[in-house]
Amino acid sequence: MTEHTYKQFNVELEEIRSGVLQMGGLVESQVKNALEGLRTGDLTLLDQVIDEDQRVNLMQKELDDECNHIIAKRQPAAIDLRLVMTVIKSVGDLERIGDEAKKIAKAAKRLHTSEVTFTPRIDLSHAAQLALSMLHAALDAFARADASIAPRIKSQDAEVDASFKAVMRQLITYMMEDPRTITNSLELLFTAKAIERVGDHAMNIAEYVVFLVQGEDVRYAKAEARLGDKS
Amino acid sequence: MTEHTYKQFNVELEEIRSGVLQMGGLVESQVKNALEGLRTGDLTLLDQVIDEDQRVNLMQKELDDECNHIIAKRQPAAIDLRLVMTVIKSVGDLERIGDEAKKIAKAAKRLHTSEVTFTPRIDLSHAAQLALSMLHAALDAFARADASIAPRIKSQDAEVDASFKAVMRQLITYMMEDPRTITNSLELLFTAKAIERVGDHAMNIAEYVVFLVQGEDVRYAKAEARLGDKS
Repeated sequence: MTEHTYKQFNVELEEIRSGVLQMGGLVESQVKNALEGLRTGDLTLLDQVIDEDQRVNLMQKELDDECNHIIAKRQPAAIDLRLVMTVIKSVGDLERIGDEAKKIAKAAKRLHTSEVTFTPRIDLSHAAQLALSMLHAALDAFARADASIAPRIKSQDAEVDASFKAVMRQLITYMMEDPRTITNSLELLFTAKAIERVGDHAMNIAEYVVFLVQGEDVRYAKAEARLGDKS
Repeated sequence: MTEHTYKQFNVELEEIRSGVLQMGGLVESQVKNALEGLRTGDLTLLDQVIDEDQRVNLMQKELDDECNHIIAKRQPAAIDLRLVMTVIKSVGDLERIGDEAKKIAKAAKRLHTSEVTFTPRIDLSHAAQLALSMLHAALDAFARADASIAPRIKSQDAEVDASFKAVMRQLITYMMEDPRTITNSLELLFTAKAIERVGDHAMNIAEYVVFLVQGEDVRYAKAEARLGDKS
């Protein structure tokens, strides 16, 4: 590689890297807005989340294309190849988190426009805060190429799962006591499930970062350092 | 590339290609067995599905490693690169179909061992047959590198979604009429959801095949022909 090519290659790697963080930021705000809309009943905000999902999908497509381009043109190896692979996988999970945000927004719209007003008073905010903090931590781990965060995210995932199960038990009680709450209980159940999945995808991303940092092939210590100080 | 290297490269591409089909076959039988166990209450079969999921996960890891190896060593381009990318993405979806089979098996176990015997008589076999036929068609499309199957799979996906919604409406009716059915109704609801997701993942695979076959870069007609007649 000439020095010029090498510089260009670095620019491209930095582009996909920052692309993931940008997409991650958008997806984070999608989840936040969906939950905010669920809480407040702000239908304009919910419609915005539903519309913006297209932009999330487009970002995945663009980052995928860029990664394919880098593999074909630059023939990356070791840490560089692992970065490209981590990006391809991470954007897959981010796209799916975007889908979950859209699902939450749609359920929230149905809940707030439904004629059935028997809605259980269930607080999803604990699970939601946990899932959002997992997502934030996973993106942070990616940004700093820091594998040490993964175990903490994993233990938070267990908490989100437990929180989902608690919500399900509460909803079953509501439904049994007053069958009129069943329809809206199911909307809340699917919303809780979507929140749980945000946590799952965040954990996946944290696991890719471990592969990125600790991959068996560590021949390119310089490249690793370069990734490390770009936080 | 020397002729020897080129031959070796072809062997490796064929390996990941047949690896996907092998993993697809395993995942297909996992879904079938989970549904069979749900129908018959065969707990041994259900436990087998739960245990075998490890093997599905391992196959994904092995195929991922092989793809990374090919990219690093062989610097694939055009159709060859698209094949590698299609494999990486497809095994991701196959692994998730494996997860859904495991979820169905776990719900089936709970349903067949539960002390609560109030289970709605809901027939999931229509949705299940559709989702399985989508998966089979998607693997077939991959095997024959045939993009023409995708639209039909897409229309089947709409059918599976509609079938899920019908199941949900039926379950709501059951739950409202007899709240004692609520716990088991939710198990069936999540099972129906898992079946719907099998269809979603099958559709994803069919879409990767379109990318594989119709990717913008068609410089390697020979390689495409090679893929085409390996059915």
